[in-house]
Amino acid sequence: MNSSIIRFILGHVLRIEGMLLFLPAFISGFYHENEGLYYVTVAIFCLLLGFLMTRKPPQNQVFYLKEGCIATALSWILLSFFGALPFYLSGEIPSLTDALFETVSGFTTTGASILDNVEALSYCALFWRSFTHWIGGMGVLVFLLAIIPLSGGSHINLMRAESPGPSVGKLVPKIRYTARILYIIYFAMTVLEIVLLLIGGMPLFDAVTTSFGTAGTGGFGIKNDSFVSYAPHLQWIVTIFMILFGVNFNAYYLLLFGKIKNALSLEEVRVYFLVILSAIGLIFLNILDACATTFEALTHAAFQVGSIITTTGYSSMDFNLWPQASKSVLVLLMFIGACAGSTGGGIKVSRFILLIKTIIKELNSYIHPKSVKKIKMEGKPVEHDIVRSTNVYFITFMVIFSASVLAVSFEGKDLITNFTAVAATINNIGPGLELAGPTQNFGHFSAFSKYVLIFDMLAGRLELFPLLILFHPAAWTDLLAKRRKKR
Amino acid sequence: MNSSIIRFILGHVLRIEGMLLFLPAFISGFYHENEGLYYVTVAIFCLLLGFLMTRKPPQNQVFYLKEGCIATALSWILLSFFGALPFYLSGEIPSLTDALFETVSGFTTTGASILDNVEALSYCALFWRSFTHWIGGMGVLVFLLAIIPLSGGSHINLMRAESPGPSVGKLVPKIRYTARILYIIYFAMTVLEIVLLLIGGMPLFDAVTTSFGTAGTGGFGIKNDSFVSYAPHLQWIVTIFMILFGVNFNAYYLLLFGKIKNALSLEEVRVYFLVILSAIGLIFLNILDACATTFEALTHAAFQVGSIITTTGYSSMDFNLWPQASKSVLVLLMFIGACAGSTGGGIKVSRFILLIKTIIKELNSYIHPKSVKKIKMEGKPVEHDIVRSTNVYFITFMVIFSASVLAVSFEGKDLITNFTAVAATINNIGPGLELAGPTQNFGHFSAFSKYVLIFDMLAGRLELFPLLILFHPAAWTDLLAKRRKKR
Repeated sequence: MNSSIIRFILGHVLRIEGMLLFLPAFISGFYHENEGLYYVTVAIFCLLLGFLMTRKPPQNQVFYLKEGCIATALSWILLSFFGALPFYLSGEIPSLTDALFETVSGFTTTGASILDNVEALSYCALFWRSFTHWIGGMGVLVFLLAIIPLSGGSHINLMRAESPGPSVGKLVPKIRYTARILYIIYFAMTVLEIVLLLIGGMPLFDAVTTSFGTAGTGGFGIKNDSFVSYAPHLQWIVTIFMILFGVNFNAYYLLLFGKIKNALSLEEVRVYFLVILSAIGLIFLNILDACATTFEALTHAAFQVGSIITTTGYSSMDFNLWPQASKSVLVLLMFIGACAGSTGGGIKVSRFILLIKTIIKELNSYIHPKSVKKIKMEGKPVEHDIVRSTNVYFITFMVIFSASVLAVSFEGKDLITNFTAVAATINNIGPGLELAGPTQNFGHFSAFSKYVLIFDMLAGRLELFPLLILFHPAAWTDLLAKRRKKR
Repeated sequence: MNSSIIRFILGHVLRIEGMLLFLPAFISGFYHENEGLYYVTVAIFCLLLGFLMTRKPPQNQVFYLKEGCIATALSWILLSFFGALPFYLSGEIPSLTDALFETVSGFTTTGASILDNVEALSYCALFWRSFTHWIGGMGVLVFLLAIIPLSGGSHINLMRAESPGPSVGKLVPKIRYTARILYIIYFAMTVLEIVLLLIGGMPLFDAVTTSFGTAGTGGFGIKNDSFVSYAPHLQWIVTIFMILFGVNFNAYYLLLFGKIKNALSLEEVRVYFLVILSAIGLIFLNILDACATTFEALTHAAFQVGSIITTTGYSSMDFNLWPQASKSVLVLLMFIGACAGSTGGGIKVSRFILLIKTIIKELNSYIHPKSVKKIKMEGKPVEHDIVRSTNVYFITFMVIFSASVLAVSFEGKDLITNFTAVAATINNIGPGLELAGPTQNFGHFSAFSKYVLIFDMLAGRLELFPLLILFHPAAWTDLLAKRRKKR
């Protein structure tokens, strides 16, 4: 195990976080708030620690999938811990567990909050909450890869561990440029949303935080009622951008380079839009009677479908009060999630396409036992290993999901609350149903349940195995053995 | 496609059903009831139709997995349809949909009832309901194989399609003897339970129907309150037998031939008992406060765990009123189910062992990417194809499960009702929670939902693919093409 490269990467992550923490501090200066002081303090500490950890570059820059996973998991834990400190130190979130929950929820782009009165927070805290979504959406290690010249050719393992989806392709041969292109598209789309919201009449602070939450498919709002009180045309802008940020970024890359035909033929993106349209149609018909006008029903159906399938989690009304069929559709969308290679969470559309094709192939094998047809995506045969690991991913996901529901149920809340609270965190959505519904918050859960949900948020964002590997004894014996050898 | 062998098998199934229908008729004679007339009528019709269909033996007796699956699925549908007719014709269940639901629930050993007053039924109807459990538990095609000398060597495909579990082994080289041994063990254990219940002071009719329900892990009771009003010692006898009927019958075969050590080392059976003991322990502690005595808590915990994991579905109290943690444990047990090669339903313990081992193997591959260790069961490596088909089974199960919950939710009942109603039917248990709870019945569901649940019961009992194959166009084009060629 190459533990010095892990130390080196963690140091860089801390340096990046240190720099990022100056942004909310700047905001606090602008609004004449005192809370900024804590952000500056933590920022300086992160920078110092980061410099210490990166002072000596690792002799060996090669790392494998194992190191990539461990570095990623530890990065996210470290990032969350230091990101939580300003909330805790400033007293805006007096419990460390709660501060950690809020920050993990931010970085993982979940958007589940323990706060019952968001509007009481300072501007800098509100900004930091939303900004964590933006950082976590595209990924801090992808950012690292974009800016830091790591030599050695196996950095795809870092990106693979952090990026969502069953297979990570490079857009261009060099990882560094791939990471840069991704961040450029991400940045440009965010700015475009801010501009459109401003044109629509939204105040600047609202426009920026809302766009951060949309871009990262996060869902933290700066109002207690999330998106209920904004005008319908603003809700539509956000609806469209939520759905756009749930698209596989490969599509934008292809569009950017004029390959429009290739972009439109992406199977995952087509299915993604098909699912969205079907879900909007179903819910629209189902809630039509409960809404004042047809337009209102369509607005809410589209907003909520866009918000849930992309795992953003904004709400334009209390969908916990919707008829059961609509709620069932939403719960199903929670698990489907957005496209691979987007900023969204969930199991991912492409995995579901593969799973359905696997079932069809199995059924065919009963009719033609000797057929050796391979599963195809975009007309090309899919490697056996990707099919296998997609199956295993789904199984692992369901096992962790069930175990979490069981663990949370020990505090005696109803099954729907437990079920949807876990679904909303492991899929990085935010709101669930009942006591975890859009008008509620997660503050009432016990500390034990909160740590279970924190685990689920991280597991969901990092796609399970990079986090699970921390619980594998070999990961640690390896690490310690190397250390001992050195001495 | 060999369609004449399918016709031939279906004919034999009808003949067997015709003969079995004389038993409730006999019971009705004993109790001087008029309903027996309808059973005799349907019996004679089945026998006639069966004779017609088996008059000309098929020229070609060879059949493959495809024919095995189609024959099995159609057998179970035919069996249920004709089994439902006496309920419908006698007017005891006035709706044909309800009669069909009740009979499918019987044969598939589910035990979910549409009746709100079971005690109003005639003795012969009560007997037939419980008897369908006994027939469906071990399987009618296994019975067929035991008694009818089919030549040709591919009958393992019939047994494979009907028997539960990821892999079906022959106990002895000849399928016919394997089937006979299974039925002999099944019969002997049922008689033993009847005798013990009689010694315990239960009336004969109660003892016989209860034992049928236990042996088939069915769950239809002859009382409205299921097993609540029976004495604790009778509840314990039933608890033990439920658990015994959930054990892989291979274990009994080994015990029978003195291979005690082999029987005790069966991995699935060990895990099965471990899960049962853990679940009883958890629920015992969780409901202790709500019960009058420690013994009462233990009795109910053991009874309910035994009833749910073996997918029997008797209830000794209304567990819908239990604390949430206990209910979550029960919901989890619903999906785990009994051992493969038992009469129980659910996903099966052995599948879960394989799934967990698959996850561990995947995690290991992150640490040692080049390792090629195979998954082992009982110390022997498991064939790749069994691991793969187990994964696919789980995925298919979850997809059908989710689609069913969505379909049922359109009638507007709460999520827990929909979720557990589907879980209770696809896993062949019987009671779920809330409106599908142990003190409720399934009569209030719409006809559409009832047909969804009927599909789920059959899919669960036949382990998905033998039923799904009926929806594959190729199954029918093949069949019709062969017919056309003949003319």
